[in-house]
Amino acid sequence: MRWSQTFIHTLRQDPSDAEVVSHRLMTRAGLISKLAAGIYNYLPLGWRSLTKIAAIVREEMEHAGSAELVLPAVQPAELWQESGRWFEYGPELLRINDRHERDFCFGPTHEEVITDIVRRSITSYRQLPVNLYQIQTKFRDEIRPRFGLMRGREFIMKDAYTFHADAEDLDLAYRAMEAAYCRIFERCRLGYTQVEADTGNIGGSESHEFMVLADTGEDAILSCPACHYGANVEKALAGPVSDAPPWPLSATPSPETVHTPSMRSIDDVATFLGIDPAHLIKTLIFETDQEFAAVLIRGDLEVNEVKLKNELGCTHLQLASEEKIEEITGGPQGFSGPVGLTGVRILADPTVMDLEVAATGANGPDNHLVGVVPGRDFEPSAVADIRLAAPGDPCPKCGEPMIEKRGIEVGHIFKLGTKYSKSMNCSFQDAEGGEHPMIMGCYGLGVSRTLAAAVEQNHDDKGIIWPLPLAPYEVVLVVLNSDKEVVVEAASAIYDDLRNAGVDVLFDDRSERPGVKFNDMDLIGFPVRVVLGQRGLDNSEAEISLRKDGEKRMTPIADLVPAVQALLEELRGAE
Amino acid sequence: MRWSQTFIHTLRQDPSDAEVVSHRLMTRAGLISKLAAGIYNYLPLGWRSLTKIAAIVREEMEHAGSAELVLPAVQPAELWQESGRWFEYGPELLRINDRHERDFCFGPTHEEVITDIVRRSITSYRQLPVNLYQIQTKFRDEIRPRFGLMRGREFIMKDAYTFHADAEDLDLAYRAMEAAYCRIFERCRLGYTQVEADTGNIGGSESHEFMVLADTGEDAILSCPACHYGANVEKALAGPVSDAPPWPLSATPSPETVHTPSMRSIDDVATFLGIDPAHLIKTLIFETDQEFAAVLIRGDLEVNEVKLKNELGCTHLQLASEEKIEEITGGPQGFSGPVGLTGVRILADPTVMDLEVAATGANGPDNHLVGVVPGRDFEPSAVADIRLAAPGDPCPKCGEPMIEKRGIEVGHIFKLGTKYSKSMNCSFQDAEGGEHPMIMGCYGLGVSRTLAAAVEQNHDDKGIIWPLPLAPYEVVLVVLNSDKEVVVEAASAIYDDLRNAGVDVLFDDRSERPGVKFNDMDLIGFPVRVVLGQRGLDNSEAEISLRKDGEKRMTPIADLVPAVQALLEELRGAE
Repeated sequence: MRWSQTFIHTLRQDPSDAEVVSHRLMTRAGLISKLAAGIYNYLPLGWRSLTKIAAIVREEMEHAGSAELVLPAVQPAELWQESGRWFEYGPELLRINDRHERDFCFGPTHEEVITDIVRRSITSYRQLPVNLYQIQTKFRDEIRPRFGLMRGREFIMKDAYTFHADAEDLDLAYRAMEAAYCRIFERCRLGYTQVEADTGNIGGSESHEFMVLADTGEDAILSCPACHYGANVEKALAGPVSDAPPWPLSATPSPETVHTPSMRSIDDVATFLGIDPAHLIKTLIFETDQEFAAVLIRGDLEVNEVKLKNELGCTHLQLASEEKIEEITGGPQGFSGPVGLTGVRILADPTVMDLEVAATGANGPDNHLVGVVPGRDFEPSAVADIRLAAPGDPCPKCGEPMIEKRGIEVGHIFKLGTKYSKSMNCSFQDAEGGEHPMIMGCYGLGVSRTLAAAVEQNHDDKGIIWPLPLAPYEVVLVVLNSDKEVVVEAASAIYDDLRNAGVDVLFDDRSERPGVKFNDMDLIGFPVRVVLGQRGLDNSEAEISLRKDGEKRMTPIADLVPAVQALLEELRGAE
Repeated sequence: MRWSQTFIHTLRQDPSDAEVVSHRLMTRAGLISKLAAGIYNYLPLGWRSLTKIAAIVREEMEHAGSAELVLPAVQPAELWQESGRWFEYGPELLRINDRHERDFCFGPTHEEVITDIVRRSITSYRQLPVNLYQIQTKFRDEIRPRFGLMRGREFIMKDAYTFHADAEDLDLAYRAMEAAYCRIFERCRLGYTQVEADTGNIGGSESHEFMVLADTGEDAILSCPACHYGANVEKALAGPVSDAPPWPLSATPSPETVHTPSMRSIDDVATFLGIDPAHLIKTLIFETDQEFAAVLIRGDLEVNEVKLKNELGCTHLQLASEEKIEEITGGPQGFSGPVGLTGVRILADPTVMDLEVAATGANGPDNHLVGVVPGRDFEPSAVADIRLAAPGDPCPKCGEPMIEKRGIEVGHIFKLGTKYSKSMNCSFQDAEGGEHPMIMGCYGLGVSRTLAAAVEQNHDDKGIIWPLPLAPYEVVLVVLNSDKEVVVEAASAIYDDLRNAGVDVLFDDRSERPGVKFNDMDLIGFPVRVVLGQRGLDNSEAEISLRKDGEKRMTPIADLVPAVQALLEELRGAE
């Protein structure tokens, strides 16, 4: 393609609302432009890259046994009412009234639609499994859309859905999808990691996220360099942590009250009492949609609210107000403790129960208890891992210290179970004629988000550095001295040669100054660059360089095509 | 692909709401299913065909110099307010409020968005022309969606837009698009015709529609078998029609009043007076958004309201009420005439002015005038072609009688002019620094509609007969006696051979009765069918047939792949 015949307009200025690198660079490089908050135009360069990702996704989906279809953007409310999500989904669901005032929404996902299709067609176990996917435009009305394509409102997603007669069959499809996702990100040449994820309110039994690693990623991941266990911090299992040091005070036959005026923080209390923060039982009063609960964690550790939600079986969770704490415990905030606490569920992390002797709040103003023995002086309603894992924690699988990385969630696969098939009555008959809800899996991959994540991971201060498979064009051919006909003609001949050899090349045939062209070349980030000017032509040579290292190779024009092809091969093999 | 691994579910019953063939067959063949009124799921078979059309469209758009991008479905109201269409567009525009109560719409077209992109990037004539297209999902909230994909609410369209410095350059792009459209429909192997179309309210200077010919088409087309002139009836130029016969009555120096009690129809009056209907000047009083107008047409001819609207420069047009007619002419409906008529614009068709002597209403109750000489007894404000052309009329280009065909509009190209660039201030500087609005063209092609039109044109009472390029699979391989392992194995081997040879084949590996499989094969309409059963296998042969003629060719299994390939080549060449 000739630059003059497509539509590439780079910007010198960063867009004023761009907070992240991908938003900034994709806008400046003319890949996207903003139409409205969270709504972006895919300009020709951006669309080319997106098409390349989509092609890889398609191939791997087909390979995983999934058949492509496309479902409508506009969905009738009735289906969402059946599944219950019409009421559960908040204002992120873009609701629409048609001219007859009937309720619709712009689909943020398609579980309801696909379940409706399958229940209308499938009746017998003999027709299962079903494995379908689409690449389609979705809408989530984010309250504060930002970060360009990273958290847009309108976005392009690959979503796949599978339907099964039993859990084993779901597991087969799930493993195939998992493998397909790995191949997709490998083929895109993106550094990624697969992590155990929270199944949250979707309520399935297993779930994995795929994260493109980037320092700018929104998500914190803990991973084990030894055994490759990885998990979202929200979900990371908390392996055994070092025991608290020995209790430094004298043992007591029962808890003793100590006056701790205005000491609400763990550190203040521990210092005052002359004990380690690990000896304190931190007691937090939480409020859920249904109840209040006292949550116990060792003073040096933190609570993971996602794990806690799952343990409490609630969708909303917050710390109780000061008034409520006083009402429940009899004491002000900062002085709560489990001893003698009644009327609320008490949930303890195992590390609390492992303490031989501990201190805790006395449920009265300015008082703490020391010499508290868990199991003797209080008994929790339940003991469960609710601890927030942290870098340095031992890996729950092999015990090695875990490290923290940051990532961008680009894929999420779920074993859904029967959430939708039950509520929407999507069932099948088994061989004996028994009726069962189908067992479902769903598999999302953010196509437009992957494009942005690729830029977050691959850039420098001059612009994007495209991994070869995602570059809008693999090669850019730049003509300098475009006022000289002989140079333009020679460059055009090279362009024709490259195209005829099947090279994916953009010809920068603009009559711009060299500086402008070089800046654009770096900003857009084509992997391979060929530059021809008067001086080179005089020597019958052109300059080849790679975006990633900039090293210049003067190459005889006669050898240019094989030289470019060899470089591309090298990039394909090496990256 | 194996049937058992994709998702194809045919129906025995026609959908109850299916009024047209394509809706009926596409639903029964498992190509689409209805999600809501005018909103359809593209199931895997339907999506495959659609993808094939889209691929052809993409290639021809690239060939015509258009670059692909994709614009959002959800568009902000502000742009539509700028162009004025927010107010002009009726309830077909699906208006949306986001969570912040801001106004958006689900785009039915993208003139505003593309104009916004171009005005933000282009400042100079040196950056023109621009030629961009997308294949994207659109929504038009039809009051009564029906006919399946033929008139859906959510649909897939290719829309291209071009921007130019002058009309000559627009013409170049327009001609290239015109040629691309012809190639697209030829490559789809669809019988089509290109017709001059009404530019209507879009207000451009030139416009063509592309019609897939089908007896069930909604649009009437007049075309000339001799010179290939073709036009939508709405737009068809009215060539010279035969003169009225000589005036049979005696000539009079001035019009004479004749009492014609209660005779309001042309035929009644002509019979009573003993003249030909062609001698009567039919006088119709129309009401537009701004004025009343008297419209004169020869009694044996009809008025084309689309032409009339364009002549009067109005968007709304209707016949005036009886009361208004009486108020304007002084006489009741059926007795209007141009003689002595004042206070309204009088528009005459040329055929009226060609009458030597005529009769007409006398603008009084139960009276007509005879001996009226156009130009002597009345002078119209304007003379213009407002006649509805009819089959048998002479071609306006070569004079041969035109014939009527029916067609389905699948493409529409427009020279838009400056409608959007003016209202949205999309301008450029010429070489002298002068500022001008860009001149635009727009080019729509209904991708999902083309799929439906292909079915309307290609079917019989058993099902669809796909043109090879649009078939979901070019070949179906059907195994009979699927309970016999040896037959299944032999069929599987054939399937592998066909796939390895690059044949686009679906393997019907279901354990269904032969009757079910044959019916599905006919219903879905794969062009080439290969059937293997126990009896064939015993003779080491399989049966090959074409959907279009059903003729059976027994072929040795060893020769099957080349035989299928030869048939496909034949179809590619011959159709």
